[in-house]
Amino acid sequence: MAEVGIIMGSISDWDTMQEACSVLDELAVDYEKEIISAHRTPEDMFTYSETAREKGLKVIIAGAGGAAHLPGMVASKTTLPVIGVPVESKSLQGMDSLLSIVQMPGGVPVATVSIGKAGAKNAGLLAAEMLGAFDKETAARLETYRSRMKEKVEHMRRELDEY
Amino acid sequence: MAEVGIIMGSISDWDTMQEACSVLDELAVDYEKEIISAHRTPEDMFTYSETAREKGLKVIIAGAGGAAHLPGMVASKTTLPVIGVPVESKSLQGMDSLLSIVQMPGGVPVATVSIGKAGAKNAGLLAAEMLGAFDKETAARLETYRSRMKEKVEHMRRELDEY
Amino acid sequence: MAEVGIIMGSISDWDTMQEACSVLDELAVDYEKEIISAHRTPEDMFTYSETAREKGLKVIIAGAGGAAHLPGMVASKTTLPVIGVPVESKSLQGMDSLLSIVQMPGGVPVATVSIGKAGAKNAGLLAAEMLGAFDKETAARLETYRSRMKEKVEHMRRELDEY
Amino acid sequence: MAEVGIIMGSISDWDTMQEACSVLDELAVDYEKEIISAHRTPEDMFTYSETAREKGLKVIIAGAGGAAHLPGMVASKTTLPVIGVPVESKSLQGMDSLLSIVQMPGGVPVATVSIGKAGAKNAGLLAAEMLGAFDKETAARLETYRSRMKEKVEHMRRELDEY
Amino acid sequence: MAEVGIIMGSISDWDTMQEACSVLDELAVDYEKEIISAHRTPEDMFTYSETAREKGLKVIIAGAGGAAHLPGMVASKTTLPVIGVPVESKSLQGMDSLLSIVQMPGGVPVATVSIGKAGAKNAGLLAAEMLGAFDKETAARLETYRSRMKEKVEHMRRELDEY
Amino acid sequence: MAEVGIIMGSISDWDTMQEACSVLDELAVDYEKEIISAHRTPEDMFTYSETAREKGLKVIIAGAGGAAHLPGMVASKTTLPVIGVPVESKSLQGMDSLLSIVQMPGGVPVATVSIGKAGAKNAGLLAAEMLGAFDKETAARLETYRSRMKEKVEHMRRELDEY
Amino acid sequence: MAEVGIIMGSISDWDTMQEACSVLDELAVDYEKEIISAHRTPEDMFTYSETAREKGLKVIIAGAGGAAHLPGMVASKTTLPVIGVPVESKSLQGMDSLLSIVQMPGGVPVATVSIGKAGAKNAGLLAAEMLGAFDKETAARLETYRSRMKEKVEHMRRELDEY
Amino acid sequence: MAEVGIIMGSISDWDTMQEACSVLDELAVDYEKEIISAHRTPEDMFTYSETAREKGLKVIIAGAGGAAHLPGMVASKTTLPVIGVPVESKSLQGMDSLLSIVQMPGGVPVATVSIGKAGAKNAGLLAAEMLGAFDKETAARLETYRSRMKEKVEHMRRELDEY
Repeated sequence: MAEVGIIMGSISDWDTMQEACSVLDELAVDYEKEIISAHRTPEDMFTYSETAREKGLKVIIAGAGGAAHLPGMVASKTTLPVIGVPVESKSLQGMDSLLSIVQMPGGVPVATVSIGKAGAKNAGLLAAEMLGAFDKETAARLETYRSRMKEKVEHMRRELDEY
Repeated sequence: MAEVGIIMGSISDWDTMQEACSVLDELAVDYEKEIISAHRTPEDMFTYSETAREKGLKVIIAGAGGAAHLPGMVASKTTLPVIGVPVESKSLQGMDSLLSIVQMPGGVPVATVSIGKAGAKNAGLLAAEMLGAFDKETAARLETYRSRMKEKVEHMRRELDEY
Repeated sequence: MAEVGIIMGSISDWDTMQEACSVLDELAVDYEKEIISAHRTPEDMFTYSETAREKGLKVIIAGAGGAAHLPGMVASKTTLPVIGVPVESKSLQGMDSLLSIVQMPGGVPVATVSIGKAGAKNAGLLAAEMLGAFDKETAARLETYRSRMKEKVEHMRRELDEY
Repeated sequence: MAEVGIIMGSISDWDTMQEACSVLDELAVDYEKEIISAHRTPEDMFTYSETAREKGLKVIIAGAGGAAHLPGMVASKTTLPVIGVPVESKSLQGMDSLLSIVQMPGGVPVATVSIGKAGAKNAGLLAAEMLGAFDKETAARLETYRSRMKEKVEHMRRELDEY
Repeated sequence: MAEVGIIMGSISDWDTMQEACSVLDELAVDYEKEIISAHRTPEDMFTYSETAREKGLKVIIAGAGGAAHLPGMVASKTTLPVIGVPVESKSLQGMDSLLSIVQMPGGVPVATVSIGKAGAKNAGLLAAEMLGAFDKETAARLETYRSRMKEKVEHMRRELDEY
Repeated sequence: MAEVGIIMGSISDWDTMQEACSVLDELAVDYEKEIISAHRTPEDMFTYSETAREKGLKVIIAGAGGAAHLPGMVASKTTLPVIGVPVESKSLQGMDSLLSIVQMPGGVPVATVSIGKAGAKNAGLLAAEMLGAFDKETAARLETYRSRMKEKVEHMRRELDEY
Repeated sequence: MAEVGIIMGSISDWDTMQEACSVLDELAVDYEKEIISAHRTPEDMFTYSETAREKGLKVIIAGAGGAAHLPGMVASKTTLPVIGVPVESKSLQGMDSLLSIVQMPGGVPVATVSIGKAGAKNAGLLAAEMLGAFDKETAARLETYRSRMKEKVEHMRRELDEY
Repeated sequence: MAEVGIIMGSISDWDTMQEACSVLDELAVDYEKEIISAHRTPEDMFTYSETAREKGLKVIIAGAGGAAHLPGMVASKTTLPVIGVPVESKSLQGMDSLLSIVQMPGGVPVATVSIGKAGAKNAGLLAAEMLGAFDKETAARLETYRSRMKEKVEHMRRELDEY
């Protein structure tokens, strides 16, 4: 059963948001993914948010760009933690996405990560960390993931030695 | 009967948004005003937007600051024109408010005005202009308003002559 | 007879501004289009603005980039509503266009939309919304347009299911 | 036993970070608070991060300003979720704090909230939401908190009616 | 007979623009000053620009804030050099004024100086430099002005020695 | 004899700065061009500035990018008017160049134009305007140049009619 | 004999730059201080830079605001290390100072520190670190300084315990 | 024996950081290079910083992008001078890297250079300047390097003459 819900405003966000899916696959965390547009399907957004907890979701990841209202509006309709991914926008490189997501007023938090693909990956990791705070197996997999990151640095070092 | 609906996310926005009310009073345009918070009362926001047209509203003015989602979310729930007023925010001086309001994706427009009190005043004027495009009396009052603006320049000129 | 006037400072803005035309075509709204440059043809700009209402225009859409003065200057010469489209600029990605258009002083509003093509499309929709506030047929077409947007989300969902 | 660890780089951050404490008090969540400076006490920062999980912490809130390295560095030393609060900085109003915290590279997430006091309050709420995803009592208290937010809007409406 | 025309959009710009007047007084350059608002008195702006050369003006200094269109629009109506002073704006500290003035499209230049009072002073000096390129007396006075600036540094040095 | 001196910090600025040369060629204004680097050849920069007036120059155009010190430093060594062209920089798109040039302290003005090629062209035009304030032939050529700009708009209009 | 030269463009920079002096006093490093203005006393700036090494200086600290050219120009005239302090500017809060100082072209480095008083203090410390790399006593004093910083954290902790 | 330590967070930074190596090669300064990631190998970062002085290093160059914590964290663990190179980031063009590195709090300085390759080159030069303050041979090589820079300007001048 999915513990993480990943939603995005448009299929064009998939290129970014698949990073969240990949890392959750790697950490063996169950997730579901869906297109939910704050501006085109606001009713679906409300329904999704209202039913998230009873469906068994523990955390929601929402990606959006430009005047990115999806993460904050979902957060206004659930008390589950919501992670916002600022998708890189065409003109302003995601600065508009970032400010629209992170500058939430007191009362309704959104856990904002970095702009673009790195942010989507980190959204997946952050969701896993929230689960891992209560689940030893996920915590252990996160430790393993970190170890592999250190190993990659070792590979980089050997590569650098050749320059 | 109100033709313009003025909504704002918090009573703290009133200091800004009263400028819209003042100018509509001056132009004899009927309006209503209400607190509608995108993040605290999302259901009310939906109801307000869905019933706006049948109530007789012709245009909605929405003011909000920070990650300002109110104007765009209202715009997603009605095909009446929505004017967004970026209220000056504490840390980023309204740049976050501006980008959160103006950078709407294709499909759901928000008519954005300048940051703060000048923007709220202009929101009132813009709403009146929309009405005035179809109503000669309002158009005439707008012309008179413009004439008074020119007269004020005359007063300024006399003041400058004294320096 | 044209109800919407679409003007732009240069033929190089056409790539952006045609989005406004397309959406008005789709919504069966009559419009006219013209090159009016604030800096190269200021007199034409004045004439255009002064005669807009008597020609039957209900709203003007003006697109410009960089130190974008066209929307604000047209707005200073008519009390019809003026929609400003910030065309993406070469160096500063339209941030200069946006601020030059949106930050109008109190008294002369410009209804500003998002930077670039999405903004031009939204300018067309916003103009239609202004007409639709007084015209049931246009309002109905806008509702249909919104329904098609929702349907597109359905298509996206099926596409996402395949990933 | 504390489930949330709140750390900050300097006593001057307390004015901001107490908002996190207040909201956790209100939600009956146990927390501990400490001064941990990334740049002045880097060893303590490491020790704190390494021992956080075994101490029973489920989430860490870290506030810092300027070149704000505390949240990201703590995140690099634990797989518990870390919430970063960008404290408003003197010259750049927290834009430097925000970017230093949110723009983490792929692999090490920081859950970033808004700049300043609203952000600190939201950090407390977000921590409670993480706990509440697994704990019904906390979830219930969060729902009550939200209800009170709605009630406050009712009070604001009555206040607005008087203007 | 005035060789420099100083115009500003509002009496509220006088606090800034008087710096230009002061320095021209100091350099014995004749100037005239007037309120000319691009948005409130566009016709006056056109008349002013069109008659500037025949009146004997050699250069125009125009100060404005926010979406500052005055300098660029004046420049579009005269081939005299136009100096633009970005007046500090309320929300965005003159960044909007600066970009609205300096980012002119190819074909219509505005000689932009720094934001606020220092800029207004420099506008006066720049106007004098333009005159001084063709007039030895003004050139000599500018050299004297520079010498006094050096002398002020000497005074500052003595002041610093006391710390 | 050259009346306009065009200098730039590096041969890589030529692609931008040739726009200034082209327009001066078109306006039959004599100019000289040279590489003068503030940081690599500071002594040459001083010599150039000190001898500019006696050589017969009436105005200096200086282009530079990044931490662009050339225009301001030349301006500190001559009382001739100095026009600064912010060359587009690699990382920050010329925002650093613009601020380094335009934000001069009171006492030493730089006439700043827009970023990049449009700015270089405008620098040429501005220099010609300074000469044209005292020289009827140049003024007449500037008027002709403006007329051609209007004619180009006519061509654009015919092109637009075909879309 | 002074090993560190501290220069600033104006006496108004002293409030900021005294932080560099205080920390050097505390670390028993000999320094001299002087007003050297890039724009008002460019010749003195050259002389200062050219004679710095022979006078025995090992490093120069230069503070300036706005279009801050002093650090970069001094760096162009000496191969001693130059530390640049971006003094907070009136309108743009030191962002202009920062970019004017840090964005030096390849070939002429400036060691830039943070904006304002914290930056000035750090400039003093950085200068001492450069000396301390070759001088054990200064290195030892820097270690002591760091220890005191840790002790201050201890004091802050006791203060926090009382809240 | 290496006097300069060059570290970077990832092999992807090598393209930028090799500029520092090239210039140190050219100046015959011994250096070592290594991958040290603040977020993936924080322990190695501590070890590297703590042992740098005893290994004989006189200065450390650290390059990183995005939320760039490496330079500041290394600086917190050594009293050797640390030079920070803001590597250009994907979305925000290095503005995030720059602010994360330069805006260090008082007490722990980082000598920040410009964004990207020019900055990396300047980091190498700055390191050599620090050594050259105490070592005549390195100082002489820096003077030669500067002379070659001047000669390159001569070549550029001949190239420009041909246009």
